[in-house]
This record gives sequence, structure tokens and C-alpha cells, in this order.
Amino acid sequence: MTEPLRIGIAGLGTVGTGVVKILQQNAGLLAERAGRELRVVAVSSRDRDRDRGINLHGIRWYEDAVEMTTYPALDVVCELIGGAEGIARAVCESTLTQGKHLVSANKALIAHHGQALASLAATHGKICAYEAAVAGGIPIIKVLREGLAANRITRIQGIMNGTCNYILTTMEKTGKPFAEVLAEAQAKGYAEADPTFDVDGMDTAHKLAILAGLAFGFAPTLEPLPCEGIRQITIEDIRYARELGYRIKLLGIAASSDGQILQRVNPALVPLSSPLGTVEDVYNAIQIEGDFVGKLFLEGRGAGEGPTASSVVADIIDIARGIAAPTLGSASTPSTPPIFCAPEALECSYYLRLGVLDKAGVLAEVTSLLKEAGISLRDVSQHSGGQGEVVQIVLTTHRVREANMNAALTRLHALDSVVHAPCMIRIEA
Amino acid sequence: MTEPLRIGIAGLGTVGTGVVKILQQNAGLLAERAGRELRVVAVSSRDRDRDRGINLHGIRWYEDAVEMTTYPALDVVCELIGGAEGIARAVCESTLTQGKHLVSANKALIAHHGQALASLAATHGKICAYEAAVAGGIPIIKVLREGLAANRITRIQGIMNGTCNYILTTMEKTGKPFAEVLAEAQAKGYAEADPTFDVDGMDTAHKLAILAGLAFGFAPTLEPLPCEGIRQITIEDIRYARELGYRIKLLGIAASSDGQILQRVNPALVPLSSPLGTVEDVYNAIQIEGDFVGKLFLEGRGAGEGPTASSVVADIIDIARGIAAPTLGSASTPSTPPIFCAPEALECSYYLRLGVLDKAGVLAEVTSLLKEAGISLRDVSQHSGGQGEVVQIVLTTHRVREANMNAALTRLHALDSVVHAPCMIRIEA
Repeated sequence: MTEPLRIGIAGLGTVGTGVVKILQQNAGLLAERAGRELRVVAVSSRDRDRDRGINLHGIRWYEDAVEMTTYPALDVVCELIGGAEGIARAVCESTLTQGKHLVSANKALIAHHGQALASLAATHGKICAYEAAVAGGIPIIKVLREGLAANRITRIQGIMNGTCNYILTTMEKTGKPFAEVLAEAQAKGYAEADPTFDVDGMDTAHKLAILAGLAFGFAPTLEPLPCEGIRQITIEDIRYARELGYRIKLLGIAASSDGQILQRVNPALVPLSSPLGTVEDVYNAIQIEGDFVGKLFLEGRGAGEGPTASSVVADIIDIARGIAAPTLGSASTPSTPPIFCAPEALECSYYLRLGVLDKAGVLAEVTSLLKEAGISLRDVSQHSGGQGEVVQIVLTTHRVREANMNAALTRLHALDSVVHAPCMIRIEA
Repeated sequence: MTEPLRIGIAGLGTVGTGVVKILQQNAGLLAERAGRELRVVAVSSRDRDRDRGINLHGIRWYEDAVEMTTYPALDVVCELIGGAEGIARAVCESTLTQGKHLVSANKALIAHHGQALASLAATHGKICAYEAAVAGGIPIIKVLREGLAANRITRIQGIMNGTCNYILTTMEKTGKPFAEVLAEAQAKGYAEADPTFDVDGMDTAHKLAILAGLAFGFAPTLEPLPCEGIRQITIEDIRYARELGYRIKLLGIAASSDGQILQRVNPALVPLSSPLGTVEDVYNAIQIEGDFVGKLFLEGRGAGEGPTASSVVADIIDIARGIAAPTLGSASTPSTPPIFCAPEALECSYYLRLGVLDKAGVLAEVTSLLKEAGISLRDVSQHSGGQGEVVQIVLTTHRVREANMNAALTRLHALDSVVHAPCMIRIEA
């Protein structure tokens, strides 16, 4: 057997602790699979006294994670600190500069600085791996970059944020509004004290940017990546969607059409019985379409100690086995930058909910306005809202350009009988 | 860019033709991803004149596939002939012996001779890759061997034969019996003229043996691998299962418990709304459980030109990139052989259908026999069969040992009032 692979763990939070657990509990099995021992020789964390349920005896301790990366007896550093800048970025850059392999679970860092890290890795002839950055335990990076490498990818869409999926699933099950479910999720530890990153879609945007770059051959970028979260989703929308045969999910979607790419994050209506429609609670799921493979669907745990650590250790095993795919999926940097199409160029079907005054002729007014705007309707229903004189009109449209839809929404909102800004949610097949 | 990877294709049937199509249509993209050109330099097939819709100009033609493997200007041979013995086996052995990498889509060959081929590959320092052998376009070999390599796998279960899933799905949708749906599937080209391998489960068994070996660390073996097909599934069973909240699927299942492995192929009742329960038509799907990752589910096209060729070309790209995981998942041959537990040691819930004479006291007789046998029931229903005096008793049990269930079935069959052999189908959660 070859020499042990010597590993340094930067960050002993949930994921870092999970990585040490796997490496210790499955040590014999992993050595058999990898062909060498996977040995943790150094860890870095600020709090040395906390009981993490792992044995750190004989392992070097660093208070300063960047200092750890300079320890010569290390082959790999796992950056499990998080954040696009600051210490996490410094650890990653120093690791590669020091001629060590890097494993990172940091979606923000890869989404913002993936290209720079890939260049640094290439310069120093080292691996920069980041399976755990997207969708926790689902090996989506490997599937996209290696398993489906034969295909021209046409579309990726997925549920990549467990917190949002938990909130939406729970709203549907309990009938409780967003704010109440969010508060409960925070109490249970399913949502952060500051939930902004999750519920406003930025976490999904980071993950989508990484997948879109891999799929379509460009460095991950958040410009442009229009992003809507789930704060505005009401319990009524969830109910009306269900009556129409849909469930509301926060999706990251990247699609390529005629050489133009559109990447976006938004809530969407997906069919109840579709693969994405049946994903519950904190699970993640991703659907990929390729020109030869057709549709491939993956579902699994998108966060948490075990699943995320599973992906970190998979990267470590790849390194131990000498497996190295190109960091961003292509061996060469593409000569031409990607062309992004304007979000308004999107063509899809829409769900619309309008709060209107309960008086004669409003429905006719709304539908004739939409007809004039060239928007053809699939379903129309009217619901008494229980709020005095306001009723809810719920519409779904056939496929239409988003630019046309936006123009129609402005005109609808301007109607005297429409009492609040229309709620518009895209429908994804 | 490095030298081109020079590829020989042995077998220009559906899959071989698909491989050439991908390599030609996506040539530029694949060269970018792989870091070198993927060039088909030789093909072998018996029928030179058939129009396959691909350009074979300038490519060497061999009538004899084994002879092709001796062509010095080849780096990789793709064996796409099929069959566990004969020419396919000779091509694979010769390829490795000649010091070339091997890519095979041949499940029967890997299931029977995986260990021998892995040894041959190791001896000659070459890669033996077989992603396309299991579940078509789903990159399940890579997911299991690399993506989930951190985990001790506890269970794999999946729908791995599109023909059977198509037949079962169509029986449910149309209400037509097995024989009629099979004949229609044959007419449509969804089933072979001789459907034995598919409908009797052997195709699933080959695929399961490969996955079980990878998951649990032993060379694939069909001994023991108890195997039941779907010929005996009636339209009534499908209907009764549905009433109970289940759908009938042909599953390959391998599970490890207390160090003992049970691998088997059998029809099973799975919950209607479970991931496996919603897999329709010719799709394949596989669920894996690991100690850290939890449950991972993959669904995609399990057969056909595009999906299967997608997996073959993924293996080719791995070779072009220099990516080599251990052939059977472990760097070293395990020192101890796997321990298989007896099929009768299985503990699960069961669905039972009994055709009984329509007379007083039969139900009581049946249920008290089961009670004596220590089998506790969950659901009991009785259906007039429309066949004279025979009625159908449908039962589901709580968890019980298969040995006990078999003993009870023998006693039930011996009852005067039971008019045909009881139908027993396992229930999988």
C-alpha cells in the first residue's frame, strides 16, 4: 500500500466534525477503497475545549487555519469554514499556493472565486475539489462533470436549499403562514437565526452558478443571475397551486437555448406528481437534461453533518486515488465568454393571483386586458377571500414571453379594481 | 493539447452506433472537456453495408473484432457486442492483454467474469470500465464507486430493467394481462423476441450482482442470487396492490446486515408515492442507503441508444482524462469472501392472494392457520373473483421471517378450500 494521505481539517463545525467521524469510523473500509490510509494529521478551530464526540488525540491543533496550510506534512487541506471572503478564502489560496490539494465545501467561495481557485490549482498542479458545495450528499458535481460528460447539457433545474423546501412543505402540510413556519424552523435548527441567505434565494443562486458553469462550460458567475426567494409565497398560493395540480418549490434553473444561457432562481409551480413535485422536507433534488442521456434525476439529503461530510470525504478519496477531473469541467478555458439572454426573453407559463374588488365586471376587465396583451389563459377561477370586499382571481397562462407578462402585470396593477400588486409565479414543466 | 485518444468500437449495433454519433456530434465539446481529441480509428462489425446514419469514412474496418484489438494504433477498445462468453469475452480479454484500455457495456460479462477482467486490467496496468453495463444513462457505477465511496453501504434497491417496468406500468394503465402486454411490447421493440432474460429477472440479476459487489466489496457473483421474474403477476394483483396503496415493480435488492449479505431479484409491492413507486415506463431508478449520506435516489433512462452510449462515452472521457478508480471498487482484493445469508432468513412484510372456494368459514380457516404460524396480519379483504365459486382472499402481513412464511404457504396450499398455489409478493418500504 502507498503512503498515507495526510489531511488537515480547517474548521471543526458540523461538517468538519462529520468528516473526522467518517475518516475514523470507516477507516479500514476507506483504506481498502482508496488504496492507502486516509490520516487526519492536523485540525484547526478556535474552540479547543468543546466536546465534539471525536478523538483528536495525536492530531496537531492550530488556532490559525492559514498557518495550518503551511505545515509541510500535509497533502490535503479541507476548508470547512464558509464564507466567500476572509479566512476561508485565505485558507484556500494558501493551501494551493503551498502546493497542497484543496477540498472545500464552500459554495459562496466557489461561486465567487471558482475561476481564480481553478487557475491557482492549475498553476501549482494540485486539485481543487468541491463536491460538498452543492446539494450536500448528492454527488452532483461528479455526475455533471464526469458521469454526464458525453452530453451537451440543455437544462438543469433543482431544489437546492433544504430550509426553503422544509418551509414550503410545512406550510402546505400545516396551513401555517411563512413567518410562523420560519420561526418554528429556526427553533428546530432547520433555519439560521438570520435566514436571509436561504429564504431570499442567494444560497440556491451560489449552488446554481456552480452547476451552470460546469454544465455550460464557463466560470461560475452571479452576473447575471436573477434571484427571487420565497418570502412572498402565501398559504393561499400553495392551496390554489395544489388545486391546479401543482406544488410550489424554490428552484434554481439554468438552461441553454440557441447558444444563449439563462440562469435564475425563483419559486415555481411544478406538477404534483413530477419528480421535483414529490421532494419533501429538507431533501434536495436536481434534474439534468442532456442531448443523449435524456433526463436524469437525483434526490438526496442536501445538508447536515453526515451527507455533507460524505461528499467531502468522496473528494478526499478521489485525491488519494489520484483521480483529477478538470476543476471547472473543461481542460481548457473556453475562448469565448458565455452569452446570457435577458430574463425578459424567458418564455413560460405563469400562475397569477390578483386581489380585486368584489364587483361586477372585474373578471371581464382582467381577462380582456390579458387578451389584448396577447396572453392566452388556461385556467381561470375566482375565490372569495374572506377579507371584506376583496376576492382573489387565480389564472394560469399558456406559454408567453416574460416581457409581455411584465407589461401586462403593470397594466393590471394600474386597474382601479386591483387592490394589491399581482402575485406572479412561473410554472415549470 | 495532448495526443488524441484512439478508439476502436467492437460492435456497431444500437449502442455502438450511438457512441460514434456522440463522438462525432459533440466532438469539439468533448475535446474541450477531455483535454484531447477522442478519435474513432477502427470499428468492427459483420455487416459493412447497413446505413447507420454515421460517417465511417477513413475509419479502419474489421470483420473480426478480436483482430481489431491487436491493431497497434488503438488506446481503447469499446466492447459493445454483448453476451457473457464467445466473441465478447474474447474481445475483452484480448484488449487488456494487448495493453489497451477496455470499455464494456456488457452486464452479463461483468457479472460472470468481472473478477478475471479486473485482474487482467491490473496485470497490464490498464482500465476496465463498465458504466453502461448497469442502468443505461444513470452513472450508477461512478456514483457508487466514487461519489459515495465514503459510506458503508447498507442497502441498494432498484428498477433496473426497462422492459419489465414498461410491462408492469402498461398492465396497470390498460388493464391488459401480462401475455398481451408482452406481445405488444415485442411488436414495439420494447421487448426482445425471446424475452426470457428480461421478464424472468436474469438481466436485473446481472446488474444487481455488479452493484452489490461494488457496494459490499466483493467480486460480482450470481451464486447465491435468488431470482424471480414477473410472468406470474396478474392484473388482479396489480389492482389489489393499488387498493392497498402499492404498485408492483421488479426490484433488484442487495442489503447488508450484521456482516451478512442478501442479494435477490423479485417483484415487490412499493408504496405508490415512494420514489420507486412513481417510476414509469422504460425508466430505471436506483435507491442507495449509506451510513453517512442517508438515502440517495437516481432515476433516468435505463436503455436505448443515447443513454447507454452516454455512459460508454463517459468511460472514454475518464480514460482520456487519466481517471482510474479501482475496477471493482477496492484497491486490494478483500481477504475474506462475503458471507451471504440464506434467503429464508429475510424478514419482511408480505402480500398474499389466495383463490378459495366460496363457502362459509374459509376466511376463518385461513386466518387461524396464519395465526398459528405466528404470522400477524395487517390487511384482509375478500373479493368475488367472477370465476364460478372461487373468491380471492387478499392479505398483507406484518414483518415475518420468510422461512415461516414459506412453511405457512405450504400448509395453506394443502387446505381443501384453497384452489391454487397462493400468490406471494414481498412488500418493500
